[in-house]
Amino acid sequence: MKAALVQAYGSPIAFAEVPEPTIASPSDVIVRIAGAGVCRTDVHILDGALDAAFHPTLPYIPGHENAGYVHEVGSAVTHLQPGDPVIVHPAITCGVCDACRAGNDMHCPTWRFPGVDGNGGYAQFMKTSARSLVKLADGTDPTLLAPYSDAGLTAMHAVKRLVPYLHPGTTVVVIGSGGVGHIAVPLLKILTSARVVVLVPDDDRRAFINRFGPPDAVYLTGDDGGLRAVLDDTGGGAHVVLDLVGEGRVPADGMRMLRKGGVYAIVGYGGSVTIEHLDMINRELTILGNQIGSYTDLVELMELDRQGLLTIESTSFPMEAANDVLHDLAAGKVFGRAVLVP
Amino acid sequence: MKAALVQAYGSPIAFAEVPEPTIASPSDVIVRIAGAGVCRTDVHILDGALDAAFHPTLPYIPGHENAGYVHEVGSAVTHLQPGDPVIVHPAITCGVCDACRAGNDMHCPTWRFPGVDGNGGYAQFMKTSARSLVKLADGTDPTLLAPYSDAGLTAMHAVKRLVPYLHPGTTVVVIGSGGVGHIAVPLLKILTSARVVVLVPDDDRRAFINRFGPPDAVYLTGDDGGLRAVLDDTGGGAHVVLDLVGEGRVPADGMRMLRKGGVYAIVGYGGSVTIEHLDMINRELTILGNQIGSYTDLVELMELDRQGLLTIESTSFPMEAANDVLHDLAAGKVFGRAVLVP
Amino acid sequence: MKAALVQAYGSPIAFAEVPEPTIASPSDVIVRIAGAGVCRTDVHILDGALDAAFHPTLPYIPGHENAGYVHEVGSAVTHLQPGDPVIVHPAITCGVCDACRAGNDMHCPTWRFPGVDGNGGYAQFMKTSARSLVKLADGTDPTLLAPYSDAGLTAMHAVKRLVPYLHPGTTVVVIGSGGVGHIAVPLLKILTSARVVVLVPDDDRRAFINRFGPPDAVYLTGDDGGLRAVLDDTGGGAHVVLDLVGEGRVPADGMRMLRKGGVYAIVGYGGSVTIEHLDMINRELTILGNQIGSYTDLVELMELDRQGLLTIESTSFPMEAANDVLHDLAAGKVFGRAVLVP
Amino acid sequence: MKAALVQAYGSPIAFAEVPEPTIASPSDVIVRIAGAGVCRTDVHILDGALDAAFHPTLPYIPGHENAGYVHEVGSAVTHLQPGDPVIVHPAITCGVCDACRAGNDMHCPTWRFPGVDGNGGYAQFMKTSARSLVKLADGTDPTLLAPYSDAGLTAMHAVKRLVPYLHPGTTVVVIGSGGVGHIAVPLLKILTSARVVVLVPDDDRRAFINRFGPPDAVYLTGDDGGLRAVLDDTGGGAHVVLDLVGEGRVPADGMRMLRKGGVYAIVGYGGSVTIEHLDMINRELTILGNQIGSYTDLVELMELDRQGLLTIESTSFPMEAANDVLHDLAAGKVFGRAVLVP
Repeated sequence: MKAALVQAYGSPIAFAEVPEPTIASPSDVIVRIAGAGVCRTDVHILDGALDAAFHPTLPYIPGHENAGYVHEVGSAVTHLQPGDPVIVHPAITCGVCDACRAGNDMHCPTWRFPGVDGNGGYAQFMKTSARSLVKLADGTDPTLLAPYSDAGLTAMHAVKRLVPYLHPGTTVVVIGSGGVGHIAVPLLKILTSARVVVLVPDDDRRAFINRFGPPDAVYLTGDDGGLRAVLDDTGGGAHVVLDLVGEGRVPADGMRMLRKGGVYAIVGYGGSVTIEHLDMINRELTILGNQIGSYTDLVELMELDRQGLLTIESTSFPMEAANDVLHDLAAGKVFGRAVLVP
Repeated sequence: MKAALVQAYGSPIAFAEVPEPTIASPSDVIVRIAGAGVCRTDVHILDGALDAAFHPTLPYIPGHENAGYVHEVGSAVTHLQPGDPVIVHPAITCGVCDACRAGNDMHCPTWRFPGVDGNGGYAQFMKTSARSLVKLADGTDPTLLAPYSDAGLTAMHAVKRLVPYLHPGTTVVVIGSGGVGHIAVPLLKILTSARVVVLVPDDDRRAFINRFGPPDAVYLTGDDGGLRAVLDDTGGGAHVVLDLVGEGRVPADGMRMLRKGGVYAIVGYGGSVTIEHLDMINRELTILGNQIGSYTDLVELMELDRQGLLTIESTSFPMEAANDVLHDLAAGKVFGRAVLVP
Repeated sequence: MKAALVQAYGSPIAFAEVPEPTIASPSDVIVRIAGAGVCRTDVHILDGALDAAFHPTLPYIPGHENAGYVHEVGSAVTHLQPGDPVIVHPAITCGVCDACRAGNDMHCPTWRFPGVDGNGGYAQFMKTSARSLVKLADGTDPTLLAPYSDAGLTAMHAVKRLVPYLHPGTTVVVIGSGGVGHIAVPLLKILTSARVVVLVPDDDRRAFINRFGPPDAVYLTGDDGGLRAVLDDTGGGAHVVLDLVGEGRVPADGMRMLRKGGVYAIVGYGGSVTIEHLDMINRELTILGNQIGSYTDLVELMELDRQGLLTIESTSFPMEAANDVLHDLAAGKVFGRAVLVP
Repeated sequence: MKAALVQAYGSPIAFAEVPEPTIASPSDVIVRIAGAGVCRTDVHILDGALDAAFHPTLPYIPGHENAGYVHEVGSAVTHLQPGDPVIVHPAITCGVCDACRAGNDMHCPTWRFPGVDGNGGYAQFMKTSARSLVKLADGTDPTLLAPYSDAGLTAMHAVKRLVPYLHPGTTVVVIGSGGVGHIAVPLLKILTSARVVVLVPDDDRRAFINRFGPPDAVYLTGDDGGLRAVLDDTGGGAHVVLDLVGEGRVPADGMRMLRKGGVYAIVGYGGSVTIEHLDMINRELTILGNQIGSYTDLVELMELDRQGLLTIESTSFPMEAANDVLHDLAAGKVFGRAVLVP
C-alpha cells in the first residue's frame, strides 16, 4: 500500500509502497483510511521532539488523527463489520487494567499511540484495536471528520473537565484559534453557560474564529498577550484560561489573567511556567493538564456532530501533499484542520 | 489591655498596654482570647515577608489563630451570647457577595485577616465579626483548640478537596509533619481510604507523627527528598502529594513523586516550581492551591474534634514568651503547635 | 397601603387598606413592589391546602414572587440603597446556621416564606431581609421579572441539579409547559447538551412552548400521558424526566418513561406515586425532590437574563384583577406568568 | 461435574452430575469454584419471584456470588492464567457499549447474570467472561471471600454513592444487619466520617453487628420500626437511611426517619413505598436505587480487604447442605454469610 513515512528527524516526510498491516490478535481491526488529520504534533515528531517520550523505530508511518472504514476484523470482534464508517480513537488500550475498567482510557499504563510510537494513518490502511473504534451512523463519510479524533477529542476532554467551574456569570478565555480552538469554542458554548473570550494574534484569526460558536468577544493578543483586554473585559480576571498554545509567553500571561479561584487548563505544550506557591495559595489557583481524551469523550463528541451542533473546518489534500501541508501548518497558515487523503 | 505587637520588621515582638477594642458595627463581636496559636506565618510577618500582600499599619497586634469566649456582641448579633466558648475563623467576610453566599468565604473580595492585615489575637481581647465565630459545645475550654482555627482549618480544607482523588488503593504522600501535618494525617485517615505516607526529616519527627492517625508508612527525606522511598512504596508514584512545606527543593521533588493522573496539593509556601507543559499533559497532572478554609470547613473540623476523632498537640505558653516560641518555631523545635495565653 | 388579602379559605382575595410594614430589625428591608407573580401555589393557598404545612394567621397578604425597589433599609444593611431595583428571593433565612453558611439557603431550619406563612407582595410594600435581595443592574425595570423569583428560581435549581446526568446523547422529558416550564426548557438548552422533549396537553401549549428554547421535540400527552411518544423518540426511555405537574397520572407515567439509570425530578406537587423496590433496583433509578432554590441559583438566573439568554413571558395586571387572574390560572388559561402591579 | 440445580419453582434444590462448561468464545473463562455464597436472592429464585424479570430455562445451576481459581481461558484472554485466584463479578458484560466503556458495567444493555438468568456457581466449575474476573493476590484462598462478589459489592456500590452526602456531623441509619449489613457498616466507617446507627430486630443481631465497624449506636426496631430512637438520636432525623431490607413497613419507616435534604438509599427489595410529592419537595428528599456494583467497585472492595480493613463473616458448608442453608437463611438464622463448597 501507499504510505507516508518519517524517515529521519529533520528530514521531510518520504513516500513509499509498504506492506499492508495484517490481523495478528483476535481484537485487531484493519481500517481503510478515508482521511488523516495533520496536527502540530506531526511537526514536533519530524523535529524529533517526541522521540524521548515515545521512541518510535524509524522509519514509520505517522498520522494519529484518523477516520475511515472497517476493512477487516479479528476473530473476537463481533460489534464491527467491514464497511462500517468509523473514527479512530488515538490510543490503543488494554481494556483490563483499572484505568480502562473505570473508563479512563488515557491512563492505561500500556497504552500505545499509533502514528506517534508506531505506524499510524498516513497510509491506505492502518491497524488498531476494536476498543479504539467509534462507529459512525450508516452512510456517514468519515473523511473530513478525522480531526475530531484528536483535535476535537482533546477539546472535548478539556472542556468537559471545565464544566464544574463555568457556571452562569463566569468567563473563560481561550488562547488559540486553530484546529483545537475552532472546536473548543463551540463546545464551551454548548456545554457551559460561560462567556467565551478568545485571544487571537491578528484579524484573519479573528474573522476565522468568529465563525465558530461564536465567541462572546475576541481580542488581539498585541503587546501584552491580551492581558489588559482580559482584565478589562472581566473586571478583574477570568475564571478559566484554556491555553491551547502552551509555549512562549503564553503560559505566564495566561496565569496572570486569572482571578482568585481561577483555573488554568493546559492543552498546548512546548513551553513551561514557574508557579509561586504564595501566589497559588493567595489566589487559590488550580492547574489542569489534559491528555487527549477518553473513548466516552469521543462518543459524546461525535454525537454532538451528528446532531448538527458542531461544524468542523477540514480541508482535504492528497496524501502526497503532506510536506506542503506541514510547512503551512508550522507557518500558521492552516485555518481549521488539514486532512490527508491516501 | 495587655497585647503583643509587631513594632517593626526585623525586630522582635514588643509588649504594651493598649486600649481594648470596642463594638463599632452591629455585627461586631469582642472575643476574650483564651489561646492564640503561633504559626510559621508569624515568623514571615516579623520578617516583613507579608507586607507587600497585606500591608498592615505598624505597630499592630498579630495572632490569626484564636479561640476564646464571646465578651460583647453588636446589636445585630442574636445567636451568640457573652460567655459562649468560640473558635475564631481567621477571615472577616462580608456575607453578601456571591462568594460568601455560596459558602466560599475565603473568596470574599473584601475579606480581612485579623492578625495579618490588622489587629489579631495576641492580646486579652480582639474584635471580629459574628460571621467568623463557631460556637463550641457548652463547657468546652477553647484554649488549646486555638490551632484548629488556622493550622487545622487549612488541613481540613486541603484534605476535603482531595477526597475525590483518594479512593481505595490510592496513596497520598504528606510532606511535612508539624502543626498542619499532625492534623492533616488523621484527617486523611478519617475522610479517605487512601494509604497515608509521610516524609519527615529525622527520627524525632517520625516518632512525633506516628502518634497521629497514624500514617501507614513514614520515610526519611534523606538525600533525594524521599523520592526513591515513595516510588518504591507506591510502585511508580503517589496519587496525591500534599505539600505542607512549599519551599526549597520540596515542590520539585513533590511533583516528581506523582504517578500519571496525580495531584499536587499546595499548602506550604515560600518557594516555587517550574512546570513543563509537555509533562503536565503526558502525566495529566493537577495542581491545587489551597487558601485556609471556609466557615463550613471549620464547623466540620470542630465536629470531628467534639466526637473525639481528632487529637491536637497544643502546648500553652504565657503570651510574654512569644519571642522564645517564635524562635523555637523558626528553628523547627516546636512539635505540634504552641499556644499563647494572654 | 393598598393590599390583597387571604381573608378565609374558600373565599376569594379581598382588598383593603392596611398599615405599611416597618423596619424592626437591623437587617430588615422594605421593598416597594413593582410586580408580584401569580403562582399555582396561590390557588392552593386559597383552597387551604397549605395551611397544615405553613399555618399563616388569617387575614394576611399573599404573594411570594416579588420584584421591586428598595424603599428603606435597617441599620445593618450597607450594600443596598433606597431606589435599587431588586428581585426578592422567596425565603427569609437566618444566615448563621450550617445550611445558610454552606449556601444551602432553603435548608435553613428557621426559614420563613413571606406570602405563604406571613405577609407577602400583593401590596404596595413588603418587608423582607437584606439576605433575600438580589440587586439588579441599574435602570432595570423589575416589574415583569418578578416570576423569576419563584417560577424561574425553581426551574433553575431543578435544572442545575440535573446537569451531571445530561451529557451529550441524553434526552430529558419535561412534563408541563406553563410558568415554570417556559423557563425550564431554555435553561435545559443553555446549561446542558441534552435533547429536550416536552409533553403538552394540546396544540395551543405546543405553539406556546415552541417559542422558548426551543425544545427539540414536543408531543401531545394523549391517551397514555405521552408514554409511547417518549419511548419511540428515545429508543427505550428518557434519561431524565422533569415533572412540573406532579399530580394525577403524571407521576406514574413519568416514572415509566425512564430508561435504566434514569432520574425522576419532582417540581410539581399535589399527587403521589408508589415505587416498587425491585424496579428501583433493577432500573437503578434516582428520584430528586426540589424545593425552590438557593440565593446563588437566583443570582445565576438573573445573570442569564441580563445577558439576554432567557426570555420570560410575563403579562401585567392591576392588583385588583387578582381574582380573575387566579381563576384563569386554575383553568389553565394563563400562558407564561401573570404579574400583579399594585 | 457435581452441581446443584433449580429444578422447579417451589421445590428444593436438586443435585446432579452435569457436563462441565466449555470455552466457546475467545473471551470465555472457566472458573473452578472454591466457594459460592448463599444469598436471599436464591430464596426468591426458588420461589419463582425472579422468573418474570430474568426467565432462566429450568433446570439450571444457581449461585451468583462466586470465587475460585481460573481453570481455562479463551484464546483472547492474556491477563489471566490457570491457577490464578479470582473473585467473580456477578455480571457478564459486553465491554463495547457506552455504559461498559464508561465503567458503568451494570448498565450494559445486554448484561447476563449467571446464577440468575443461566448457570452459576453452585457447581465445581462455571463459565464466565474475562471481563468479570478480579484477580486476587497470589496465594489468596478465595473460598470465604465469595460473598464479597455480591453482598459486599452491593454494599460498596451503595456506600460509595452516599459519600458526597456524609460529611462530618451527619448520621446514616442502616436498616439490616445481615450479609450486606455486616460489610456496609464498616465500609461506612472507612469511606465516610458520618455517625453510623444500625437498627436491628433483637439483641442477637445487636451483638453480631457490633463486631463489625463497629457502629456508633445500635437500636432495636421495636414497635415503631426504630423511628423514635432515630429521631431522638439525631435530633430531628437522619441525613441518610440505607435500607437493606426493603419490604414490609421498613420502606415507609425509613423515609420517615429522614431530615430535610435526606437521602433514602434502596438495596433491599420485595416491598414498596408511596411517596407524596408535597413531602418530597418540602423535605427536598432524594431516593437512590442501587443495583449491585461495577467492576471498579469490586476492585476497590477487594483492595480494602487485602489491606486488612474489612472482615467478612463467612461460614462454609458442603454444597450438599444447600437446602438446609437456604432454610436457615429464610428463617433469619444465618449471621453473616454462608458459603457452599462444591
